[in-house]
Parts: sequence; structure tokens; C-alpha cells
Amino acid sequence: MFKEIIQKEESRFLEELVQLLKFPSISADAKYKDNVLECADFVADKLRLAGMDQVSLLQTAGFPVVYGEKIINKDWPTALIYGHYDVQPADPIDLWHSPPFEPVIKDGKIYARGAADDKGQFYMHLKALEILIKNNALKCNVKCIIEGEEEVGSTNLETFALAYKEKLQCDFIVISDTSMISNENPSITTGLRGLCYMEVEVTGPNRDLHSGVYGGAVANPINILCQMISKLQDENGTILIPGFYEKIEAVSQKERDAMSKAPFDMEAYKKHLDINAVFGEKEYSVLERVSIRPTLDVNGIWGGYIGEGAKTVLPSKAYAKISMRLVPNQDFHEIEKLFEDYFIKIAPENVKVKVTPHHGGEPAVTPTDSFAYRMAEKAIEKTYQKTPIPLRTGGSIPIVSMFKRVLGVDTVLLGFGLDSDAIHSPNEHYHLWNYFKGIETLCHFYSEMD
Amino acid sequence: MFKEIIQKEESRFLEELVQLLKFPSISADAKYKDNVLECADFVADKLRLAGMDQVSLLQTAGFPVVYGEKIINKDWPTALIYGHYDVQPADPIDLWHSPPFEPVIKDGKIYARGAADDKGQFYMHLKALEILIKNNALKCNVKCIIEGEEEVGSTNLETFALAYKEKLQCDFIVISDTSMISNENPSITTGLRGLCYMEVEVTGPNRDLHSGVYGGAVANPINILCQMISKLQDENGTILIPGFYEKIEAVSQKERDAMSKAPFDMEAYKKHLDINAVFGEKEYSVLERVSIRPTLDVNGIWGGYIGEGAKTVLPSKAYAKISMRLVPNQDFHEIEKLFEDYFIKIAPENVKVKVTPHHGGEPAVTPTDSFAYRMAEKAIEKTYQKTPIPLRTGGSIPIVSMFKRVLGVDTVLLGFGLDSDAIHSPNEHYHLWNYFKGIETLCHFYSEMD
Repeated sequence: MFKEIIQKEESRFLEELVQLLKFPSISADAKYKDNVLECADFVADKLRLAGMDQVSLLQTAGFPVVYGEKIINKDWPTALIYGHYDVQPADPIDLWHSPPFEPVIKDGKIYARGAADDKGQFYMHLKALEILIKNNALKCNVKCIIEGEEEVGSTNLETFALAYKEKLQCDFIVISDTSMISNENPSITTGLRGLCYMEVEVTGPNRDLHSGVYGGAVANPINILCQMISKLQDENGTILIPGFYEKIEAVSQKERDAMSKAPFDMEAYKKHLDINAVFGEKEYSVLERVSIRPTLDVNGIWGGYIGEGAKTVLPSKAYAKISMRLVPNQDFHEIEKLFEDYFIKIAPENVKVKVTPHHGGEPAVTPTDSFAYRMAEKAIEKTYQKTPIPLRTGGSIPIVSMFKRVLGVDTVLLGFGLDSDAIHSPNEHYHLWNYFKGIETLCHFYSEMD
Repeated sequence: MFKEIIQKEESRFLEELVQLLKFPSISADAKYKDNVLECADFVADKLRLAGMDQVSLLQTAGFPVVYGEKIINKDWPTALIYGHYDVQPADPIDLWHSPPFEPVIKDGKIYARGAADDKGQFYMHLKALEILIKNNALKCNVKCIIEGEEEVGSTNLETFALAYKEKLQCDFIVISDTSMISNENPSITTGLRGLCYMEVEVTGPNRDLHSGVYGGAVANPINILCQMISKLQDENGTILIPGFYEKIEAVSQKERDAMSKAPFDMEAYKKHLDINAVFGEKEYSVLERVSIRPTLDVNGIWGGYIGEGAKTVLPSKAYAKISMRLVPNQDFHEIEKLFEDYFIKIAPENVKVKVTPHHGGEPAVTPTDSFAYRMAEKAIEKTYQKTPIPLRTGGSIPIVSMFKRVLGVDTVLLGFGLDSDAIHSPNEHYHLWNYFKGIETLCHFYSEMD
């Protein structure tokens, strides 16, 4: 039944997503502030269109949270849907084949910044709710919070959750902001890595110098920064910050054995990324390296002359953005401190160092024996004719552990993306097949809880 | 006599320099092409104003060389004056206190890109020649070549010198594009380091990835580039490229002893640069490190997300511009090859590496027993009442060895700048005292050769 309704509405459901993707709602960059706010209004309108009640923009110190609810029966369970309407910056813009905020549909995919992360994914819930409410088939209560600061670390969400603790009471949280193994191997994410994101600044001389006049006697902050970064991690990916691994929860051999059953094709993986060899800790498999192990990546580096041609400058400053993915039980505030102490300790005396934390989040593991997980499993089985594989993955959704702490509720991560969606990259896209399959799955999910 | 003439003309001599400094003649950046060409025309006009003959723009594959000559007496020696009218890029532009191409005079200095390197310096020759020609006091023949590609490695100058070998015949070359120890300790540069300037590109995956999904299993090209850069040089500044030091001409203890007599105040040096400690090879003094020793500096580095805020990207590519200062007898083509071989060798198999040489130049040592050197020494003595100290310095003027090779002629490096002039940096300036003292010295220089 749901499948037919979705087919009939296909072009409208797609057109609405196109409209949503047109907003350059980049929360990281102040010059897009108005676009982010316009996007929030659009989302509120679409919650109303879905038939939700009490739709409003709940203010925070930053961008507002769009709220809506449908309370039908006090005896039924209550789901809290979380999503985010903000998106990553679109840089490097010149690598996009079409403008990031002018959605293009090609080869069964919709290309735009935010297509998969998270506009295309949270919007499936709105369409499923619209169908269910119209057809009197919604068999649970729902509350919906769509925030605008996920890509900048959900800075104000904990304060928000504390302030609206009562309003947000629920039995479980559902988030569609993750990927499946593949469309043939549906999976549900059961573990997420945490995040610790730092910015460092290394200062040498008080101004840019001529490298011919001073080179050899004055420390070059770029050379020094590179040396310091090379001391953060060995060549196998082992992180050298003292104490970094200390609190990590060991993953049982049983769990590692179960994970090793997930399909993985090394040659296809390397070919897809055009690399000759993978990287990382030899004693762990590729899937383990990106899920149950912490990592350290330099996300950005800059300093000196980066224009056309050559300039023989010995620069005053060099900078890097460095993030670490964390696993249970690493505390991101503790890791920030360990990073900062170590980074300052390894700085030679001929430079000055400044370390600033950007944002962070706790790692999280979600239960596979909860009511919500079982309902999600059942909904996927109905739609895909396959039982989803429970899977720990590498990304971070720090709010999962925050919700557990503040609201005392577990989350089910019912995501429909694919790792190849190029989220956070040029040419981000979302498969239309996944968009409509997701709506169908969510219709099953919300209609069988009574 | 010259001093009085200069004082009378002071305001005009300064106003003309201001006009010259207004041209943004940045040879490294194609968008300034017209400005570079306009600047060449201006210089040609001023050669005519000085009374030079045969003034013309001699074309090259790049920017033209401005030529002029004054041939008076076949029995007198012929000087070939070399200078350059192109300038370095002005980045980082926001650190300038006044716009780089709107010259400002403040505290006895003129602030503008090119003020000392090299517009303010070559223009002194034009004013000295004007005075001498007007007063019938020029006692040598002069030829003048002012080029427009010095800041991009004088790419076309060797071809030019070969093509005009006969026209450029001379007894010695004189260049004002270097510094003195201080105005109290006049010096003449007798040695220059060579240059080898490379650009490297490290490619990891074929596109930017989400660091949460791939981090830990896919090599991050920034982390790898940093590791590779840290393998180029140890923490004392010793360069680790095999064979790098092999051909270096040993500097005699006698010469090192003579150099050690040059005044150097470590505390003032550190304070001036606001550093807690200097850098470099322990077995050499600071002055030796920047003059008789080769060095390696990263002049620029970039990759990943460098905007505001945080973006958890695992980038596809990272880049660096890396230059080495060379000393006699290092051959820059050989060093390019050694660098490239080593850089490719230290790359792990999970990345691809591209190495591109930008430009280079041979190191050079100029004789202190030549006719031209003695005349320069005498001219400084007359103007400063002090004998100049012969000094090897750190910068590179690759054309010195090229002129020796192609024209068979030695150069005298009669520079009037100061190391504090901030050449290649924001707020480049030239002291007016040095500008007028330079003109006076050059009047003596060119008027006593008969």
C-alpha cells in the first residue's frame, strides 16, 4: 500500500527535496546566516504540510531548532525524530560538476550539498509522516526536532535539550544520518565514533621574512608544524599522544568475529578510491580501522605563500586543523587536554604554539535489543526482504550520547545513505532509490508500534 | 659636490621613485601583466631622462628588458648595470599598514612593495647617471639592463644574454640588490647562495572523503606530506637528502675567522624577530648559517579545509612549495634531481607524489681583488668614511653566475639595503638616507674610473 502511494507522489516528493536543497544553509560560515534561517522556515512549513501540530522555531543561542509533534494516544510509544537542516561548506567549489546549491538529477541520483547529509535523509521522515497522518495510519506519537548546527558541533543542543527536557520526553530517538553497507546489504548503525577537533597555530618570527636572509638561522613555522604533526602518529597510524588509548573499551573477540562477517572487497575499495594501498593499524581490518579504532586526521593545513608561482618567504605563522575520531570510552574533553599538553610539549623553544579546541563529541554504542531497534529491523525486513546487519561505523553523531545523558533515552540510527554519497565532499549526492526506499521503510516503522 | 646636487634635487628624486613604486609590476601573477609592461615603459622614459642613448625595450619570451647605454670613450672601462623592475607579490595583503602600491613616506622610510627590492636600488643608478652626464663627469662607459622577471627566476635572461652577447660586452657588472650590515658598518656582498625551488603535490584518495567514514584506513595526504617534510631535515637543520652536501666547497678556517669579526648581537637579533631561540646547525654561527651553509625552507603549504570553523574532511590532495638555498659548488639542477629522487623514495605506497621544479639559480662568489671591487670600495670610503667589509650573504641572485658563464664577466654587488627592509614581506620599505647615500656613492663610483 505505502509503495503505491509513494509512487503516485514521487514527483512532488522529489520537487520538495529540490527546493530544500537550494538553501545554502552553511552553519560554519557567518555569511550564510540568512540562508540558514530561511531554510529553518521552509522546514517548519513542511512540518505543517505533513500534518504536524505545535510547529514552531525554538530559539537557541545560535540557529533555531524546528519543532513539531503529533500526539495521538498516550498508551502508544513516543518517537523523537532528530535531523539537521544545516550543511557542510561546499569547498573546494571548483571540483563540483554542478553548483552545490542548484540540485541536479542525473543517473538516478540527486546532486547537491546536503543531499545525503542530512536534508535528503530527514526529509524522508516528513514524507512518511504526511502519508501516515493522511491515511490515519500513524500508530505512535511523534515529536520532531530538526536543528541547524550539527555541522558546527551542535554547540547549543545540550542547553536546548536541558531547557526543553519535558517537551522532548519520549521512548526512543530515531535519526537518519548514517549509511548502510549497500542497497543489497541493508544495515543499522549500532556504534559511532566520537570526535575531538583542534586548531593549532605555530608562530616563528614576528613577521614574514626573506628565506635567503634568515633561512637556516630562524625556525620556519611550517617545517616545525610538519615535524610536530609527524610526531602525532606513527606510519602505521598508531597515535603517539601519551594516554590516548588508555581508557578505550576493549572490543571482544566475539564482536570482532561478527564484524569480520560483513562483506568487504579490498580490490573494489582500493579501485573506488584510486589508491594502491590502504593505510592504518596492521593488527586491525579495514572495517575495524574505520569503526572500532580511534584515528587522527589533519583536515586542513595552511601557511606561507600559496599563490601562483614562487615566493621565497620564511613565514611568520603556520596553521592546521586536526581532528581525532574517538571510540568508547574516550572522553573528548580529556583527549583535548592530552592533545594540547603533548602538542605544547613537542614544540621546540624557537616557536610559539597556540592550541584551540573547535568542538567535540562522545562516542556512542546503541543497543540492538531495544523495542525501537526491533521495530527498525522489522521495517527494513518488510521493505528490503532482508534482515539488516548491525554495524559499528566511523562517523560521529555526538548528540547520541548527549541525548542518552540528558534525556535518558537510546537512539536507533536508521540511516539510508551509502558511503559513496560523497558527503562532506564535492558532488555530494543521494540515490533517489534510497530516498523512496527510506520513505517506505519509515512508513512501516511508524505504523506498526501500537 | 655630488652631495649638494643631490640635496637640491631631493624632492624630485623622491617623487620619481614614488611614481615608479606605484606600478604593481608583479611578474609572478598573470593578472598584473599590463602593469608590468607599463612599468617597463616608465623605466625606459627615465633612462632617456638620465641622458642614456639607444634606449629601447628588448623583447624576450616573457617581459622585456629595458636597455640603455652611454658610450663615451673606447679606452675607458665599460660597466653593465643590472636591475629589475618587477616585484614580489604583496601577500599577505592584510598585514600591510598601507596599500603596497600606494607609497607612503614615514619616519624617514618609503613604504611600498619593491621599495628596496629592487626599484629603490636600481633607480639610484639612473639618478647618479643623470647627475654625471649633465655635469660631464661620467668617466666610464655604461650599459644598462633592467629586467622584469627576476622574481620569477629570470627565466628568459640567459637566452637574452646569449642573443645579445655582443651588445652586452663590458668589463664588469654592477648590481644594487643586496644589503649592508648596517649604515654604520657598510659592506659589499661577495658571496650569494643559490636557489632550488620545488613544488610538491601528494595525492591520497581520488576525491575528498569524510574523515569519519574513511579515516584510519585511507592515507591522509596532509599527514603524509608532513611526515615526508619532516624527513627532509633533522631538528638541527641538517638536510637529510642523500648527496645534498657532497659537492660543497669547504670554507677555510681563515675565512670563517674573518667572518666571525662581523658585528652580531644575538639578543638584539632575537628581540627584533620576537623569538626565544634561533634555529640551525649547532656547529655554525648564525651569520654562517645564513651565508655559507645551505638551507631548506617550506615557503608555503596547503591542503584540505582552510576556511572558518571545522570540516571533517580527509582531503584528496596536499601541496607544498619548498626551496633550498645552495652554496658553492652545488649545482641546482643536480639538487633538483636529488630532491625529487628522495621525495619520491620516501613516499609510502598509499599516496602518489608529483614533484615540479619552479626555478633555481647557482650560488656565486665574487672576487675582492678586481678593479670594480676596488672602485666600489673607494666610492664607499668617500661617502661613508669607512672601508666596507666584504661579506657573504644568504640571498640568491642566480644571474651572477649566469653572467660569469655567458658573458665571462664578474659582478660587484654594491647594495644599499638593510636586512630589516622587509623585502618579500608586508611593509617593505627603503630608508631615504640609504637612497640618497646610494646615489652619492654611485656618483663617486662612475666618475673615477678614467
